[in-house]
Amino acid sequence: MSHNTFGHLFRVTTWGESHGPAIGCVIDGCPPGIAFSEAELQAFLDKRKPGQSRFVTQRREADAVRVLSGAMPQDDGSFISTGTPISLMIENTDQRSKDYSDIAKRYRPAHADYTYDVKYGIRDYRGGGRSSARETATRVAAGGLARKVVPGMTVRGALVRIGKHPIDRSRWDWDQVDKNPFFAPDPEIVPVWEDYLDEIRKAGSSVGAVIEIVAEGVPAGIGAPIYAKLDQDIASGLMSINAVKGVEIGNGFQSAEITGEENADEMRMGPDGKPVFLSNNAGGILGGISNGEPIVARFAVKPTSSILTERQSIDSDGNEVMVRTKGRHDPCVGIRAVPIGEAMVACAIADHYLRDRGQTGRLD
Amino acid sequence: MSHNTFGHLFRVTTWGESHGPAIGCVIDGCPPGIAFSEAELQAFLDKRKPGQSRFVTQRREADAVRVLSGAMPQDDGSFISTGTPISLMIENTDQRSKDYSDIAKRYRPAHADYTYDVKYGIRDYRGGGRSSARETATRVAAGGLARKVVPGMTVRGALVRIGKHPIDRSRWDWDQVDKNPFFAPDPEIVPVWEDYLDEIRKAGSSVGAVIEIVAEGVPAGIGAPIYAKLDQDIASGLMSINAVKGVEIGNGFQSAEITGEENADEMRMGPDGKPVFLSNNAGGILGGISNGEPIVARFAVKPTSSILTERQSIDSDGNEVMVRTKGRHDPCVGIRAVPIGEAMVACAIADHYLRDRGQTGRLD
Amino acid sequence: MSHNTFGHLFRVTTWGESHGPAIGCVIDGCPPGIAFSEAELQAFLDKRKPGQSRFVTQRREADAVRVLSGAMPQDDGSFISTGTPISLMIENTDQRSKDYSDIAKRYRPAHADYTYDVKYGIRDYRGGGRSSARETATRVAAGGLARKVVPGMTVRGALVRIGKHPIDRSRWDWDQVDKNPFFAPDPEIVPVWEDYLDEIRKAGSSVGAVIEIVAEGVPAGIGAPIYAKLDQDIASGLMSINAVKGVEIGNGFQSAEITGEENADEMRMGPDGKPVFLSNNAGGILGGISNGEPIVARFAVKPTSSILTERQSIDSDGNEVMVRTKGRHDPCVGIRAVPIGEAMVACAIADHYLRDRGQTGRLD
Amino acid sequence: MSHNTFGHLFRVTTWGESHGPAIGCVIDGCPPGIAFSEAELQAFLDKRKPGQSRFVTQRREADAVRVLSGAMPQDDGSFISTGTPISLMIENTDQRSKDYSDIAKRYRPAHADYTYDVKYGIRDYRGGGRSSARETATRVAAGGLARKVVPGMTVRGALVRIGKHPIDRSRWDWDQVDKNPFFAPDPEIVPVWEDYLDEIRKAGSSVGAVIEIVAEGVPAGIGAPIYAKLDQDIASGLMSINAVKGVEIGNGFQSAEITGEENADEMRMGPDGKPVFLSNNAGGILGGISNGEPIVARFAVKPTSSILTERQSIDSDGNEVMVRTKGRHDPCVGIRAVPIGEAMVACAIADHYLRDRGQTGRLD
Repeated sequence: MSHNTFGHLFRVTTWGESHGPAIGCVIDGCPPGIAFSEAELQAFLDKRKPGQSRFVTQRREADAVRVLSGAMPQDDGSFISTGTPISLMIENTDQRSKDYSDIAKRYRPAHADYTYDVKYGIRDYRGGGRSSARETATRVAAGGLARKVVPGMTVRGALVRIGKHPIDRSRWDWDQVDKNPFFAPDPEIVPVWEDYLDEIRKAGSSVGAVIEIVAEGVPAGIGAPIYAKLDQDIASGLMSINAVKGVEIGNGFQSAEITGEENADEMRMGPDGKPVFLSNNAGGILGGISNGEPIVARFAVKPTSSILTERQSIDSDGNEVMVRTKGRHDPCVGIRAVPIGEAMVACAIADHYLRDRGQTGRLD
Repeated sequence: MSHNTFGHLFRVTTWGESHGPAIGCVIDGCPPGIAFSEAELQAFLDKRKPGQSRFVTQRREADAVRVLSGAMPQDDGSFISTGTPISLMIENTDQRSKDYSDIAKRYRPAHADYTYDVKYGIRDYRGGGRSSARETATRVAAGGLARKVVPGMTVRGALVRIGKHPIDRSRWDWDQVDKNPFFAPDPEIVPVWEDYLDEIRKAGSSVGAVIEIVAEGVPAGIGAPIYAKLDQDIASGLMSINAVKGVEIGNGFQSAEITGEENADEMRMGPDGKPVFLSNNAGGILGGISNGEPIVARFAVKPTSSILTERQSIDSDGNEVMVRTKGRHDPCVGIRAVPIGEAMVACAIADHYLRDRGQTGRLD
Repeated sequence: MSHNTFGHLFRVTTWGESHGPAIGCVIDGCPPGIAFSEAELQAFLDKRKPGQSRFVTQRREADAVRVLSGAMPQDDGSFISTGTPISLMIENTDQRSKDYSDIAKRYRPAHADYTYDVKYGIRDYRGGGRSSARETATRVAAGGLARKVVPGMTVRGALVRIGKHPIDRSRWDWDQVDKNPFFAPDPEIVPVWEDYLDEIRKAGSSVGAVIEIVAEGVPAGIGAPIYAKLDQDIASGLMSINAVKGVEIGNGFQSAEITGEENADEMRMGPDGKPVFLSNNAGGILGGISNGEPIVARFAVKPTSSILTERQSIDSDGNEVMVRTKGRHDPCVGIRAVPIGEAMVACAIADHYLRDRGQTGRLD
Repeated sequence: MSHNTFGHLFRVTTWGESHGPAIGCVIDGCPPGIAFSEAELQAFLDKRKPGQSRFVTQRREADAVRVLSGAMPQDDGSFISTGTPISLMIENTDQRSKDYSDIAKRYRPAHADYTYDVKYGIRDYRGGGRSSARETATRVAAGGLARKVVPGMTVRGALVRIGKHPIDRSRWDWDQVDKNPFFAPDPEIVPVWEDYLDEIRKAGSSVGAVIEIVAEGVPAGIGAPIYAKLDQDIASGLMSINAVKGVEIGNGFQSAEITGEENADEMRMGPDGKPVFLSNNAGGILGGISNGEPIVARFAVKPTSSILTERQSIDSDGNEVMVRTKGRHDPCVGIRAVPIGEAMVACAIADHYLRDRGQTGRLD
């Protein structure tokens, strides 16, 4: 059972609501001897942080991560993991006190208000409570550690579609990703998206997006068949992100439209005497196990449910009401999902890596 | 950890290779008092069984399921579950003895041959061993029990695309699904697919497909937020099926292309005083928890990797070789994936149902 | 996998070292709607707190528990659980800065210094790090919530032996337990233990103890056969406490010495038409499932390993050294183990209770 | 959740009742490349088998174990594990058909009849169903594989007490264990136990026992702190055996009676430059982690509940009845518990070994 835990050997348990004193996570199973610093984790958090551009929510949160346990402090302020649980905490600083009597009872369409109430009979309505995207900050912090678990692995993400506007993959350039507020790998899509999102934002509307995550340097042989497939656990991690409605690996849904000849990635021996694949339709995974090629996953994020247009709904007393979400929100929540997707893919791979290597890897 | 186990409270552990004496599964956590029969489970197995039409593999397997434990036999030969582990076994009857010396060393492109060897250093090459689709027979049997765990639930599936040919959703008719060899809900696509697959089959080629699964009668409030989202576990279950490369819930990838206004499912009070949703873009799940609407999931199956055309590959000694897969295979393995997808969705929902209700539901 | 997590449906994950900024735990799976306050949890912590008498360590720690998430604050400062993870934190306030260069390398006999180093290759030597008994403070806080999960359950503990001096069970009086610094149920043993422990303490020595935990009001039918026996999970919880070397249920080791006639608890119908047992040799559990009688568990705690007498040991460089543990320590760590044992038994029973009832119990 | 599964990386799931067609287990997570044979597993099963002497039940069961999956058959009939689930099955051959109408409703004192009925509302009363000791045969088979997972490990057990008659430890001789029907390491206790058990058996009575298990060759560094202590999981495994009421490690309950000076195992450097302990009060485990010394565990088994003397009980309709257990039973079920205890200790250590080394150990 893992209501709020992701992973088995690299286990991330998150806690906290957007309007409590803090949010945080406990990373249990991180191997000992890993050097890291709060600043390194912070760099990933800053990518997800609100208020970075006019295209994301204008809430201001310092999102400063603090290491509470599981690591020996070094003289320079950095840490070395000891193999014991690493507790990370981020204090909530922007909890505007306001009157919640309105949304306490009204179910916002496409939000989890109604389903939380049905399930639990009680719900922390302040700022979305546990269903707030704020929870994902702790995932990004945990992902910062996961990246260090697999030697030589890099995990990068990019936005490949906003609404009706996909990128042109022939222009893919990783160097562009950090040079625009969208994590776009295609520089020519940037002005298109700017205009489009300005329009969406001014209309108080929102729109969906597709994100692509690529993990390179993952050795072949990671994963397991049947119910612990590496792609299954990557999909599980990505589907656990708020607002995600679809996940695909490699060719994904496109695989349904092609033939076996088109799909099969042929193999040859590389110049260094190692097997190479001549294509990567599989997205780096065969039979649930990595084949040494880059692991490629994409996920679709639905449009933010918080919109200014009034929508029909009900309240918890069964009255029919109209609901309109005021306040600061993301016109395209998919943008900030890029570092979150990276984190989940990193965590899933780290977890599988440790299954084969063991937590300490000190035996044999 | 669950290499070969799916679920937490309704736990299905599968075992067996295609060329051993038998395959089977153990269902741990099935509530007591559930009446079932081997014939009922067999009906689901028969949907998945090879040799049903010229569009699926011509292997002949009786696939007769046998109940070995966990249930009290009744006078009429049926069973009542006792709450203890239910062991189901299917004997392998069609293990043609043949010479495997060829494929024992050659890695078939797009198969898991290479990755199994890298991971384990040893591999049961006979008939694909554990990576054979034969393993899915046991899932279908387990799904037959899962369906009975949630009172009033029905889980149905249909094929909605083969290769370039999608169905016309406006013609969707569940009654058609069992009247053609494709589980097609659109009668007019049937001749199109017949011609297309005949061509594929004669060319020794293969093609992918998309399957849609719909679960009705699932009460609102099933699931959990964060890392135990119902859609996450459905996606995990579907991604665990061989050859699946993508999963989506409700609007899925289409969500990325629309606005918040288009996406939000509005709510009203129904004539019976219960909340109703005016649309189902969410696919029955909000914040990881069921909202009472039908749960809708789709998954993409890649083309069967076993094709007659020669492809470049390597063998386990590092020699470059050409590989061609002889023998009986499915031109579109997606067809037989329909009952398997139903089973995985049923198992995921049953598992979540028991989280809220408990295994026995006898307290309080 | 659960390196630092106890339980499956009522999951307690603890984190923190004695000399970091804080320790804490995350309780995942606590049912919604449970009313509690920090003061209630604090009351249990205060029982475990150092410095309460001259018979326990003289460290001074406020051990003030703080609720960070998972509960709606009420107007009176109390909380109601929402079903989401409850994060509890206790700041470390008594971290005397001192020179650890000595113990950083020397392995204290009977401590985990050596085994941590062998396993992890790195160890937080400050105050025992993760192996410090300080971790148990978070268990006691979690136990305070677990007690509320099972309606009508009470869990109490008492010290029944210190060294060679057992209590006289015929004088058992629960009312005495809170009236002496030993949690002794036998008032006449108190002066004996006082004299004995004064002697031990002055000699810089230490001594072991046996604790008995009794849970009353647990309904029949809680638990499960085979590998999820209620007694198995209680034993597992008690064995997870530092320094515990033995656990027994009901008659325990005494069962080995008696006959089937002496051991079998006979049954009759009680005046209220409910089954009653005429004795409780089983300690309230048959076949891993509660029978409605009080659940009785005992555990043995070894003497504190920190003693003033020099002992032979080695250091991490392989040098033979003499080790003597200076500083504040418990002459009988078993005393403070009483509330910890209560907490673990409460957690184990709560976990099993939820297996049968579900987390929310809102279905059916 | 693990109703019927023991272990996390070396996972044993057992199934089957004494009066169904078969019992069995699935071992998931066994590393690849382990050579074994049915004959090797059978040797352990034969130690547990009924009918070996007049001191155990006279039921006759072939208990022939069969390997159904997870291993490549070799030319000599032996197997090599492939890393996939190993399914072992034992057919039930001695199911005498008889009239169960009597015991179907009557609760046998000290059996799990009553608690199963309360929990599940239904119970397989034939031969004890799932609560039958027959389930333990599958554990012994699984233990046979677990022994091979840790290179150089040996796990042996011995009976150290029957009723009031303990062995004399000064006469301990492992070579004696297989030379008498009691697994007694003390040859001089054998005639005492023979006379005593003959008396018990003739009186239709039963008596308890204590078993000691010793695992040698376990490397230091196996286990984990807090909730995954090696001793905790050994205790959990032993407590999961039917009729076990107490478990202790090393000095166990005796630890409660001694001082810190007496208890601490001192360390020196051995002649081979490796650390050695001068005593083993800890039973080979410090802080939940192995220290390289022999791991020593003991467990107490209550007297068989099946006795010929009439006892007061009730039936499932609430009638007060007298119950007497006819038929074949063990006068001291503790004897046959020796190989079962060995199996559980082997499984617990194998599981922890793989946590540190990984399932395949092929990385790094």
